[in-house]
Amino acid sequence: MDRIPILQMGDLLLVTIQVDMHDQLALNLQDDLSERIRRTSARGVLIDISSLDIVDSFIGRMIATISALSRVMDATTVVVGMQPAVAITLVELGLDLSGVRTALNVERGMKLLRRSDELP
Amino acid sequence: MDRIPILQMGDLLLVTIQVDMHDQLALNLQDDLSERIRRTSARGVLIDISSLDIVDSFIGRMIATISALSRVMDATTVVVGMQPAVAITLVELGLDLSGVRTALNVERGMKLLRRSDELP
Repeated sequence: MDRIPILQMGDLLLVTIQVDMHDQLALNLQDDLSERIRRTSARGVLIDISSLDIVDSFIGRMIATISALSRVMDATTVVVGMQPAVAITLVELGLDLSGVRTALNVERGMKLLRRSDELP
Repeated sequence: MDRIPILQMGDLLLVTIQVDMHDQLALNLQDDLSERIRRTSARGVLIDISSLDIVDSFIGRMIATISALSRVMDATTVVVGMQPAVAITLVELGLDLSGVRTALNVERGMKLLRRSDELP
């Protein structure tokens, strides 16, 4: 598999990370996601990482990059489903994902995005 | 990875198949899904297979089993995002997934489930 599917739900895009990320996969995801944001005028991006048991600085940087990329395209990124061990590792790695919004699960993430959409 | 994540959105569950299925993964998915349907009282299950380029009789049977399993637990299964080549292969294999509802993408699948929910 060399592409991670991006699901559209209204003006939100949902990406579920299930597999180990490698360089090409991460690059493809960035390309695909920015193209989809442009094409669908999406306002929000949900990245579900609930199936990640472990995380490294590569994943951390990828999430930060996707978030920055979405922001310049006027979409908000919310990372959902982070496991406690992953949260601990990210903080220990110094990757506290400042600027990236998080939510406990997809439902809360969607609510967060719908709410932020109402802001001016 | 030995488990496929199941995302909850309201009374719907969403499963995105991204990796090659093997026996244990399929069994785990059936266990997890039935447990989640029970716990969340979900009315619908969306299975996204948009990232599958090829399909074999194992996947076909797995989808049929999940659909039957959901049905006896009073939930409707909709398979979404099937690629043309996959559809052709399934029909050629004789697995026409009778009894399984399909939709072109997640949004349409969700609409289908919401609509069928209104039926008596």
